[in-house]
Amino acid sequence: MFEAAELDQRVSKQEFEERVPVLRASLLDAQRLLAESDFAVVIVIAGAEGAGKGEVINSISEWLDTHGLEVHALDTTSSEENERPVLFRFWRRLPARGRTAVFFGSWYTLPIVERALDQSDEDHFDHELERIVEYERMLARENIVLVKLWLHISKKRQKKVFKKLESDPDTAWRVGERDWEFHETYDAFVAAAGRALRETDKAHARWNVINARDRRHRDLTSGQILLGAIEERLNAPPPTPAGPETPPVPPRVNVINSLDLSLRLEREEYDERLSSAQGRLGNLARRLTASQRAAVIVFEGTDAAGKGGCIRRITRALDARWYGVIPVAAPTDEELAHPYLWRFWRQVPAGGRFAIYDRSWYGRVLVERVEGFASRHEWQRAFGEINEFEEQLTEGGIQVFKFWLATSPEEQLRRFEDRRATPYKQYKITPDDWRNREKWLAYEAAACDMIERTSTEFAPWKLVSAEDKRHARVTVLETLCQGLEAVLERKKKSER
Amino acid sequence: MFEAAELDQRVSKQEFEERVPVLRASLLDAQRLLAESDFAVVIVIAGAEGAGKGEVINSISEWLDTHGLEVHALDTTSSEENERPVLFRFWRRLPARGRTAVFFGSWYTLPIVERALDQSDEDHFDHELERIVEYERMLARENIVLVKLWLHISKKRQKKVFKKLESDPDTAWRVGERDWEFHETYDAFVAAAGRALRETDKAHARWNVINARDRRHRDLTSGQILLGAIEERLNAPPPTPAGPETPPVPPRVNVINSLDLSLRLEREEYDERLSSAQGRLGNLARRLTASQRAAVIVFEGTDAAGKGGCIRRITRALDARWYGVIPVAAPTDEELAHPYLWRFWRQVPAGGRFAIYDRSWYGRVLVERVEGFASRHEWQRAFGEINEFEEQLTEGGIQVFKFWLATSPEEQLRRFEDRRATPYKQYKITPDDWRNREKWLAYEAAACDMIERTSTEFAPWKLVSAEDKRHARVTVLETLCQGLEAVLERKKKSER
Repeated sequence: MFEAAELDQRVSKQEFEERVPVLRASLLDAQRLLAESDFAVVIVIAGAEGAGKGEVINSISEWLDTHGLEVHALDTTSSEENERPVLFRFWRRLPARGRTAVFFGSWYTLPIVERALDQSDEDHFDHELERIVEYERMLARENIVLVKLWLHISKKRQKKVFKKLESDPDTAWRVGERDWEFHETYDAFVAAAGRALRETDKAHARWNVINARDRRHRDLTSGQILLGAIEERLNAPPPTPAGPETPPVPPRVNVINSLDLSLRLEREEYDERLSSAQGRLGNLARRLTASQRAAVIVFEGTDAAGKGGCIRRITRALDARWYGVIPVAAPTDEELAHPYLWRFWRQVPAGGRFAIYDRSWYGRVLVERVEGFASRHEWQRAFGEINEFEEQLTEGGIQVFKFWLATSPEEQLRRFEDRRATPYKQYKITPDDWRNREKWLAYEAAACDMIERTSTEFAPWKLVSAEDKRHARVTVLETLCQGLEAVLERKKKSER
Repeated sequence: MFEAAELDQRVSKQEFEERVPVLRASLLDAQRLLAESDFAVVIVIAGAEGAGKGEVINSISEWLDTHGLEVHALDTTSSEENERPVLFRFWRRLPARGRTAVFFGSWYTLPIVERALDQSDEDHFDHELERIVEYERMLARENIVLVKLWLHISKKRQKKVFKKLESDPDTAWRVGERDWEFHETYDAFVAAAGRALRETDKAHARWNVINARDRRHRDLTSGQILLGAIEERLNAPPPTPAGPETPPVPPRVNVINSLDLSLRLEREEYDERLSSAQGRLGNLARRLTASQRAAVIVFEGTDAAGKGGCIRRITRALDARWYGVIPVAAPTDEELAHPYLWRFWRQVPAGGRFAIYDRSWYGRVLVERVEGFASRHEWQRAFGEINEFEEQLTEGGIQVFKFWLATSPEEQLRRFEDRRATPYKQYKITPDDWRNREKWLAYEAAACDMIERTSTEFAPWKLVSAEDKRHARVTVLETLCQGLEAVLERKKKSER
């Protein structure tokens, strides 16, 4: 991977001074067109210590218009980041459409360093690289142009650089013990890096290995690659629009219409089981929060299926410090300017917290699919992206619970009419609700599709018959308790 | 302050059940109108342990529509918050216009607890209360309705509550050692709280002390107060618009036109002094970042005065991990929906970092004032708010440097024309720049006003003659070095 990058490639001072103004003017032109486009640019700067990553960033910062440019140094993680899945810190820094972000340090740093220092094994490394491929594929599909630069220097050269820095009192501080440690493990580092680059060098996210020996060659090449990537994207033909979609039709017998909607609970049994489940939930929640784990609880279902009622029965059992209820409504313009899942990553709960979603990221494959707000490409790839998202939450110590609440169309109508008649319920009913009713079958089909494709072993859907509210609430609370018990049990075992 | 709150006030179960649906319908009505208004609501829930703050929040959460409601538990601080001024954690959670946020724990918690436990003295306490008054005044002026609820229980009652919770295995965990410690210091706590409430009970941010002995009385009263506050605001007459403003005229002899614009540096001296200052700056910056302090560097000045050039001379001396350049452009809609300074608080640098602003919060009293984008009320109060902001930065360990770069109108014209002629500079010149030129005197007047009102002992303005770019750059770098040296010197002394 790095052979060519050890050849002797140089740019003379004269050539550099001739070419930089031309490059700069072209970069500024490209940046101006980018600002009006629907895509964003992420530049990943990686490579060996001593190769001059910081200097490349300084050059790029000087050449580009700082309006529209962000530089993110990712050398330390905050407690807010440590409490969340690893990709959280990158998600939160993704640039909005029209903008460019430089990442100094990236999702490659930790996996490569850990592998080089033998702190992780091959399997784990492969798993992380696969995750990166998925992440970058998602970014590319979300209109983020990835420019990945690997700055390479040989081991010999690295030693020379370190020695030279050390010999000058003004720069000696730049070389620490850790750098010499890295130098000792140079070969292992290059081996791990080589593997990472090969495995993640995909059409949508190519690696560029740059010979970093000569700084003028290095900076100029970096700038040219960046320019090429933006121009290529600007000149790309617009995607062919997908043809018109026919509304989905559910299978005659499906997981939703097979639910037994006749299940009911009488008041007395309800009161008893609800109160017992709430006590249990309070205790489990306390144990979960004490262990700094977190939970995400998602509610989806037909309109008026009783999501709010279930949520209130849960929150009554919890300390107000432990939970947040997140009703999912229209995105803000900052949210619209980012990849679809960005707005949900923003709200990933910290350790020790419950995030309860009244509707969720599943909107993409439900209302957005049925109403045509998302293109076919968008909602089709959402299944995989959502599974990936939930897997990352789970691995990050955040348990995911998902409830689908189902009623019959007749019961829905009764509830709509009740809402219309009760002053403090009127706000809940809108013309949209009446319109959606007419597309009952299309929504049912979309929901069946969703349940089939996103019921995973780490985050299965629980289908709840909600024709009777009491039955639904008790089912939700008891399911949640069982789930939390299983999580805490697993945790105990793993600690043994 | 708390006498009335110890009287025996109760609401019967029957009365509660009759009044809650009425209250709830009114709250939902008010919330719907609020959603379409230009103001936001912040509910601060404070009071003694055991008074049921969490339960009040649960009730409010149930009564309101969760769309448009946020609950923020502020019991822990993250490392990102610890590295920034104390109010940062509240700023970042302020609700957008149309929304309601409940703060469980607030800017009162720490000052009161520290005072009660004798960890801070009277003077410090007073200082913190004054800061709170300023903060709340700013919030009120920024259209945030503050609803401050203090839940009171007597010492005797607190003991009873704790004992009762301890006696039930399901709730025993709610009472910790810390709670009994608080109980021991109940009198000191109530004394500190009483003082805090009196000092911060202002027309724009009234305190409501609620007798929390009876939970139905407590929750119902809280809801009624909230409703009253929103309704009062909804019914308030619109503010009388300020009359038309005449453009400001600068004093004949002023700080800007008295600058000696003839100062120049020859190339040779420039190269030498710049390079020496950059070396010095690199070293100082490293010491500053190593000590986890931070710096904010603000550039303002006439168009084409050379802000970008100065910034590049600074960044070249810094490691790319240490700094961020923040060009201030149009706010996003999320930013517009929040108080003016919110967008700047979002970007307050973490410890060990430099934030360099190409234009800044001073836009309020410069372009927004001259062009009439801000009302007279808004830009007039901005002086005080900005001083307060910068004082908080300074006290939070973030040094503030402010440079005003001045040129003559003739020099500006020359630079505009040069920009028009140089391909990679063309992007910098817009029709706005030509228009602003025509208002030269009004801008000069606004700048003089700004410099007079916001040059403070902790963050003075440095006026720089920028007619000669070389002189300006060297002046900026050397001033910065001197400032950083003084900061590090003070730090060293204070550590001795």
